[in-house]
Amino acid sequence: MSTAPQTQTQPSPALFFETMNAYQRTAALKGAIQLDVFTAIGEGNTTAPSIAARCETSERGMRILCNYLVIIGFLTKDGANYGLTPDSGLFLDRRSPAYLGTAERFLGSPTLVDAYKDMAAIVRKGGEVFSAHGTMDPDHPVWVEFARSMAPMMAMPAEAIAKLAGAEKGAPWKVLDIAAGHGLFGIAMARQNPNATIVAVDWSRVLEVAREHAVSAGVASRYQVLPGSAFELEFGEGYDIVLLTNFLHHFDPPTCETLLRKVSAALKPGGRAITFEFVPNEDRISPPLAASFSMVMLGTTEAGDAYTFSEFDRMFRNSGFASSEIHPLPPSPGQVIISHKK
Amino acid sequence: MSTAPQTQTQPSPALFFETMNAYQRTAALKGAIQLDVFTAIGEGNTTAPSIAARCETSERGMRILCNYLVIIGFLTKDGANYGLTPDSGLFLDRRSPAYLGTAERFLGSPTLVDAYKDMAAIVRKGGEVFSAHGTMDPDHPVWVEFARSMAPMMAMPAEAIAKLAGAEKGAPWKVLDIAAGHGLFGIAMARQNPNATIVAVDWSRVLEVAREHAVSAGVASRYQVLPGSAFELEFGEGYDIVLLTNFLHHFDPPTCETLLRKVSAALKPGGRAITFEFVPNEDRISPPLAASFSMVMLGTTEAGDAYTFSEFDRMFRNSGFASSEIHPLPPSPGQVIISHKK
Repeated sequence: MSTAPQTQTQPSPALFFETMNAYQRTAALKGAIQLDVFTAIGEGNTTAPSIAARCETSERGMRILCNYLVIIGFLTKDGANYGLTPDSGLFLDRRSPAYLGTAERFLGSPTLVDAYKDMAAIVRKGGEVFSAHGTMDPDHPVWVEFARSMAPMMAMPAEAIAKLAGAEKGAPWKVLDIAAGHGLFGIAMARQNPNATIVAVDWSRVLEVAREHAVSAGVASRYQVLPGSAFELEFGEGYDIVLLTNFLHHFDPPTCETLLRKVSAALKPGGRAITFEFVPNEDRISPPLAASFSMVMLGTTEAGDAYTFSEFDRMFRNSGFASSEIHPLPPSPGQVIISHKK
Repeated sequence: MSTAPQTQTQPSPALFFETMNAYQRTAALKGAIQLDVFTAIGEGNTTAPSIAARCETSERGMRILCNYLVIIGFLTKDGANYGLTPDSGLFLDRRSPAYLGTAERFLGSPTLVDAYKDMAAIVRKGGEVFSAHGTMDPDHPVWVEFARSMAPMMAMPAEAIAKLAGAEKGAPWKVLDIAAGHGLFGIAMARQNPNATIVAVDWSRVLEVAREHAVSAGVASRYQVLPGSAFELEFGEGYDIVLLTNFLHHFDPPTCETLLRKVSAALKPGGRAITFEFVPNEDRISPPLAASFSMVMLGTTEAGDAYTFSEFDRMFRNSGFASSEIHPLPPSPGQVIISHKK
């Protein structure tokens, strides 16, 4: 169901029709995860009747769902037998250590999905239309769901970022994790560096989730929490590293700079801010996943965006940082920006 | 934003993330049509500020929307200038005679979209979960919207089918148009064949729309309406052609055969039933657009489906027809099946 209008030879309404129905892709994937279809197939149930029996559904519904999952790229089909693609086996079979199906509870939550009911109104206004400040309302409950369900998607980038920062050298780091959420980014720092202490900032109910994860990871004794708004709290000072993961995209550049000046003040001289973000190229249309993240910010925030590297670099330079460099983190679609305090 | 899991070299959560957000594609296309973005660009407004001014929106919203429309294949971008793809110019610029943007009012209607809120429940049950009989409830208002908004998408196939059937030879045809909707399929027969008379069957409020279209097309004097359920009405007899366009997919095969026996009885010996449908290949996963139509039927009907040609052929043979043949109708994703009464 890939779309390649540039290669077609005659006019076709196919892309229009496919896109008008694209919401069904989201629904089908959500439903398949909730019914545990991928695990059922991974266990060896490969025909529609056997998958339906395992998942306790109708055969008709399961046949149509599985065929649709083949069409949109999540399953294979050979005769009457369905199979998992490598990615589905790795990420969507509940028995896999890389299972990230829980993320559907955040990404498919009514808070986010219903925000897009009236796109024309969103574009007219230039921001979200569903509450006073969208998901940036103080203590918005969606961030508890985020912390609980998005952790698996962030495990790999969290470990990679700690490694990139040189955590394994064991320097006595003081790390501030702003908008810690599930806490995985700070926890990875603490796991890889036994001499690191972490201070995690987020709403208090969110920090309960982060603390659970810190306990599970065995780093609770070096894990402190600081509940409240990152814009209002006193961070303290002398930090070696400040983590800014998936946070700056929620705000406009002046608001980001206000925060970054606080971050700069909290860092030691030569300290580093480590930002993890979807960073589109300067054309703002590539790569597709990072560039399309602007649409997520348009629908759910007042003034956020997916910023380009030149925009991040400018914001950091305006806020007390000497320079920034960007690092891809394949296969994650996110990128890491390391900014050095003057 | 095309998806090609088979060519990637390492595991990636990209398809998962992209699909969880696919509902935003529908929202963006709907919003762009409602704001008339494509017409604005066609008129020569090519930068985000000028398009925003023409469409009376924020610049931020328009910039993010237009970049997203580039990513999902509806616009081009060259520097700061947006352009229409050939398909967008033909189908989505309101000034084009082939404009089909009105179809968003049916395809994106809450009746259809909200039907997919709980896919797991749909798959468990094996059919729609939103009302007694889904969109097959008697006199369901969605069909009035269908008749008003989907006509432009059907104009080309309607003319092509009348031509395929040999309408221009001018034989004195009596044509029965079952579930006429907008009426275009029967009206094309009447326009191409000045000796054809049409009897259109549908709910009475839907037939008001069909009659308006017949008046506009100058064929009202040869256009009769027969309001009610196709399963309960007395069709009469002696028809040369019975049109079954986008109708059989709503029902299970036994129900289809019940109707087809009525159709056969209404036809002259040697008369033809002409079916227009999304017809997937026997694998039920290709071509993607036709095969994915099963998902539309799963979510909105009790027992409908996108049937393969062998299934249609069997249903017609079980109901008094000698043979059927299938004709592609490019560039339409639909296909035509002509079935000959014994």
